Amino acid sequence: MQSIQPYQELINSELQKRLELIQEPNGLYEPCKYILRNGGKRVRASLVLLATKMFVSDYEKAIPVALAFETFHNFTLIHDDIMDDADIRRNQPCVHIKWNTNTAILSGDAVMILAYTFFEEAGAQAFSIFSLLNKTAMEVCEGQQYDIDLEQAALTDAITNEEMYIRMIELKTSVLVAACLKAGAIVGGASADDADKLYEIGRKIGIAFQLQDDILDTYGNVETFGKKIGGDIAENKKTYLVISALNNLNESDKQELIRLYAQKSDDAQKYTQVRALFDKVQVLEKATTEMNTLFEEAHEILNSLSVADAQKMELRTFIEELRTREF
Amino acid sequence: MQSIQPYQELINSELQKRLELIQEPNGLYEPCKYILRNGGKRVRASLVLLATKMFVSDYEKAIPVALAFETFHNFTLIHDDIMDDADIRRNQPCVHIKWNTNTAILSGDAVMILAYTFFEEAGAQAFSIFSLLNKTAMEVCEGQQYDIDLEQAALTDAITNEEMYIRMIELKTSVLVAACLKAGAIVGGASADDADKLYEIGRKIGIAFQLQDDILDTYGNVETFGKKIGGDIAENKKTYLVISALNNLNESDKQELIRLYAQKSDDAQKYTQVRALFDKVQVLEKATTEMNTLFEEAHEILNSLSVADAQKMELRTFIEELRTREF
Repeated sequence: MQSIQPYQELINSELQKRLELIQEPNGLYEPCKYILRNGGKRVRASLVLLATKMFVSDYEKAIPVALAFETFHNFTLIHDDIMDDADIRRNQPCVHIKWNTNTAILSGDAVMILAYTFFEEAGAQAFSIFSLLNKTAMEVCEGQQYDIDLEQAALTDAITNEEMYIRMIELKTSVLVAACLKAGAIVGGASADDADKLYEIGRKIGIAFQLQDDILDTYGNVETFGKKIGGDIAENKKTYLVISALNNLNESDKQELIRLYAQKSDDAQKYTQVRALFDKVQVLEKATTEMNTLFEEAHEILNSLSVADAQKMELRTFIEELRTREF
Repeated sequence: MQSIQPYQELINSELQKRLELIQEPNGLYEPCKYILRNGGKRVRASLVLLATKMFVSDYEKAIPVALAFETFHNFTLIHDDIMDDADIRRNQPCVHIKWNTNTAILSGDAVMILAYTFFEEAGAQAFSIFSLLNKTAMEVCEGQQYDIDLEQAALTDAITNEEMYIRMIELKTSVLVAACLKAGAIVGGASADDADKLYEIGRKIGIAFQLQDDILDTYGNVETFGKKIGGDIAENKKTYLVISALNNLNESDKQELIRLYAQKSDDAQKYTQVRALFDKVQVLEKATTEMNTLFEEAHEILNSLSVADAQKMELRTFIEELRTREF
């Protein structure tokens, strides 16, 4: 993510400054600092700053808003990791593993409140962004609920369909990316039309990013992907690929796929058989087309923004970095 | 709570109106509505409205702020009940019992975001109250952490002292009551001095209320108290009473008290023996004096407010209702 590196560094140092001021009780704040300092790519905060810079040069004024959205994202990670029973996050033990579930609940709450506290620095003039933050925060919770609903549903349930899956990833991931771009635009004094367009760009690249995640996990190159290929199939994860296959295979192939998903297994045979069924109904092509369409639509909207082309370059590069990633 | 009844009814109907608008996903919002509709006395919201009415007649304009604080309080109940492993809340199963822990985590998060969403209705002019809400929310988390720290500490640990206990209940309970009164005052256009005084009144009555809880649980009248006397002693709960006793008993009595607290037991003998040790160092008198001093100081501050005496009557009555409660 070359394109956002300067923003990442700025966010890290601004966050660090604020975290140093927070002290007692240590039992509450140590886990908060642990997740907030354990980095990640700061994509959301960077997108706020990048969007502001499209419209004004002193983009630093968007730092409080950027920190608020980034911190909100980290809150969701703490609580989602409990719900998803995850062990590792960014190569480190999750908060509920390193400490315990109660600590992860409470420090997650504190991180969410911290997000709103950072937002406070933006002042009363940022009130319209406050609404956007609230709306987005609630949608992210809705996305998590749809994720739970979908994971608990049978492969044959009516809700296990592509539309529902796209809606879930839209709420769980992409509305936050969208809100970051829009919030940055608002801080930069963009017109309502441009701000809405940036929201739409974020929404599309967020969904495309998740589709790409599904594609890479099954069809990626192990050397560039950095982890084992086929993890989603081994875990019976409901991805766009399996849902698309289920809705397109003939009845006997569909039953075969359901049979293969009856047990979790990282057996190579399961992977090969499932992939063969995926290939029968071209799920890779379908998912890739869907993803590329979204990336292209994002580029088109970006081209239509009412700023000089030079101001669009950073976001254009960022979208291309996303589109061409192999990890 | 005769004094706040009209406010309670208004809050119930205003909350109900807003909850009806919230629909899908049901898996997320049903638990949110369950806790928010399952009432409670709406003390916090009522105190916001009551404080506004001390300064202006159209106190209804404080409804969004009142709903925000009340809703925030309900969020803390959902998550605290998980952490405290509680089963029953307001005579109904807790959210994590009726559903499960993951549902309680996620719907708790949604209730907190809902609090901020209700706050949004107050508009940009309420920005100073937004700061107060954030600060208070973080302090409530700190209070919960101190509560956990204190519960996990040994009776002989240095942190098991009266000062720490008072600090814990101040953060866990009384700052929210304080913030409600101050927020109501700000909406009513009170001077900074009057608003700060109302905060101080809330802080004092909040602490006094918790001390009274401890007193009633050990020394209350079973008929008026409505539940078994001695529950805190049976559960080895660290109350003001036992902490005060530990710090005032001679060494051999202290060891005896520690021995009695080695096991949880609702045996009448344990209760009688513990109470005898409490009585040896007059913990009832100490706690009662501390509590009464706080209530009296609250009255004095109320008397010094720069509004007509008639405007003080409701809060005066409320404080007296608290002070003389036997349940």
